[in-house]
Order: sequence, then structure tokens, then C-alpha cells
Amino acid sequence: MDSRDADLLSLGVLVSGRGTNLQAILDGCEAGRIPAQVKVVISNRPGALALDRAAAKGVPAFVVEPRQYGKWPARKPAYERRLVEILSSHGVELVVLAGYDRLVGETLLQAFPMKVINIHPSLLPAFPGLGAQKQALDYGVKVAGATVFFVDLSVDGGPIIIQGACEVCQDDTAESLSGRILEIEHRILPEAINLIAQGRVKVKGRKVEILTAPVKD
Amino acid sequence: MDSRDADLLSLGVLVSGRGTNLQAILDGCEAGRIPAQVKVVISNRPGALALDRAAAKGVPAFVVEPRQYGKWPARKPAYERRLVEILSSHGVELVVLAGYDRLVGETLLQAFPMKVINIHPSLLPAFPGLGAQKQALDYGVKVAGATVFFVDLSVDGGPIIIQGACEVCQDDTAESLSGRILEIEHRILPEAINLIAQGRVKVKGRKVEILTAPVKD
Repeated sequence: MDSRDADLLSLGVLVSGRGTNLQAILDGCEAGRIPAQVKVVISNRPGALALDRAAAKGVPAFVVEPRQYGKWPARKPAYERRLVEILSSHGVELVVLAGYDRLVGETLLQAFPMKVINIHPSLLPAFPGLGAQKQALDYGVKVAGATVFFVDLSVDGGPIIIQGACEVCQDDTAESLSGRILEIEHRILPEAINLIAQGRVKVKGRKVEILTAPVKD
Repeated sequence: MDSRDADLLSLGVLVSGRGTNLQAILDGCEAGRIPAQVKVVISNRPGALALDRAAAKGVPAFVVEPRQYGKWPARKPAYERRLVEILSSHGVELVVLAGYDRLVGETLLQAFPMKVINIHPSLLPAFPGLGAQKQALDYGVKVAGATVFFVDLSVDGGPIIIQGACEVCQDDTAESLSGRILEIEHRILPEAINLIAQGRVKVKGRKVEILTAPVKD
């Protein structure tokens, strides 16, 4: 670890799918826009395209499948203990869920208290849970968006770090709206990591303050 | 009624307070930005500043107090029958709730089906009901806004016509956020009336389509 590395926040990224948010993070780190580095990527699904993106940048990538860890509910802590083991052994300081499709449990949160962030494709608290873009279209909202938040044991209910909004267009399908929201995600998730890496994020109960000056040192 | 008046949508506005949204509507109609005219204003509260604003423009203004109509729950339909009587006798085609602080009941909605619109100071479905701005601050959202919607028997759950968003600032109080949201309200409520007056608003189930070309004639 050289002196430059010492100033970088160590990230572990959990993924399940295509990994476009992972790519935005990798690119931001590489370009020096985010004072952080991705130390490890873990997918709960084998064959996730995100794994290839990690490999392409020389980032260690693991597949950890929950079903390998016995039956539910005992499976969940066993599975998450394995995640914590990998994350810890790579010196991870912040866990980023980037299209990770499982609910996080106590084991992971206790190992990384207020150090797990997630991105959700809606303006929370509207439309938590699965299929947020379709939920928004079905409801008939005219403004949609995305939210980066600290993960707690609720479903998409943790303290909000950043939100970004976009218009819903008349002829939007779940796919076209998802695409527009994804552009917001690719902007605000790296931005949230950047703010945390700079020590500018302070949580007070449910409210997240963004400090003008870094307070990390 | 001259030939110009014949093309104008006749509005009835229900108010309870200061009437800044009423003012935005009156100004928009007067300036010719909205092809509509306010035919009557009704307040459920005596002394509401909104009544003075109506008077200043020469618009007939009434105070109708629910408590004059007996005891709840029988009071509600009796009170609303009086509203319908006044609205109908003034030829009202669209009822606009502009800071009206009561829930609308079946009597009014049956007389004006899908002809009652309301403005709410949040990005619905988030934060329905009272104190939406404070609800938003307490939740810690970073994006807030306002919604114009068709009133149904739900609490702020009807089909959405327009929404507008704004940032929540770090040092916002309920008052400062309310002020910023009010600017959006003053923009989107007249805009919604304008679209309806032009015959460009089509409701399909929960979804409201805004048509490019008017279809009224």
C-alpha cells in the first residue's frame, strides 16, 4: 500500500446483475473523481456480468451463493458471515450495494454499522421494494427518481444521503423510465461514495447532513 | 356573457386560509394565461384572507361553515349540499381546492365527478395528509415538491395531473421548505387548470394523460 492508497476509502461492492452502477464506481475511482478504491466485488449470482467488469479492472471478485449455506432462516447469518469474512479480509471500510437483490440482515449490518449504502430506483419513501419503476408508472406519478441511503433492517427505509429526480414521460415504459433513472443512479451513487470518502457525511437520527468541509482527519 | 366568456372554463375555488394559490389563479386568468375565470370563492373559515383577495377582483365570495349544518356525520352531506348549491348556481365547471383544509366527501364528488382538483405540498404518494412539509423534513428526504391531482374519496390518493420537485436544503425549516414548495404550487396549479381548460387532460384509470392538441371541441 503506497501513500496515495492510504488516503483512499476501501470499498466492497455487492452485486447481482449487470453491474452498471459498479462500472460507474470503478470509473469514478480510476479517474480520481472519488478518493476510494474497490477492493473486492461479491455477487450472490454466478455469471453476473458485474463479475466481468470487476475482473476487467483487476479487482478480486467472488461468487457467494446463499443456497450453499444451508436452509433458511439459519442460512442467512451463515451466508452473511461469509460475506463479512471476505469484506473484512480485504480491508473494506464501506459496503456498497449496487444492484444487489437480497435484503441485508443483522450479521452484515453489525459488522458494518452505518457503513452499508444502497441505491434504489425511486424517490423514497415512495415505492420501496421490488419493481419500483413499474410501481411508479402504475401509480401515475409525474416525477420519479433514485435514492442513495444507509441500509438498516427496514426495506429501503434507512437515512437518505442523496436523491435525484427526473420527469416521467407520457409514453414511458418500465424500461424507458428505468433507463432514465439509471442515469441518475450512475451520478448519485458515485457522488455519495465521494462525500463519504471525504468524510463529509454525518448521520443524525434519520437525517443525513452533508458537511461543506471534510471532518475525517 | 360575451363571446369571449363563452370560451372560458368556469371555476369555483374552495379556500380556508391565506389564498396565495387563489391569487395565482386569479392573476393567471386576468392576464389571459389561463382560459378560465373564477366565478365564485367559498371559504369554510370566516376571516380567511382569501376572501379579501376574491373581493379585490370582484369575485363573489361566500363563507360556509360546516358547524352551521348540524352534527357530524350528518353535517357533512348537508354542508356539501350547500357548497354544491353555490357552485352550481354560479355555473362552475371545475372545482379547485386551493389550501382548503377539509376532506371532500361523496356529495361534492358526485355533483362534480372528476371535476375537483387539489394541490398538495409533497410528491405524492409520499407524505399525504396534514403537515406534509414537516413529514418530509422529519423523514430526511433530499427532494420535495408539490402535486396537483384529481380528488377522489382517498386522502390525497387521486390521479396525478402535474408534479414539481425542489431540493431540500440542509438548514431548511418547515417554514423555509414550505415557502419553496409554495412557489412550485403557484406554478403547477394554474398550469393544471390551464391544461384542463384547454381540454388537454385525459384520465385513464390512475393515469392522467396530457394531450398535445386540445380535444375539447
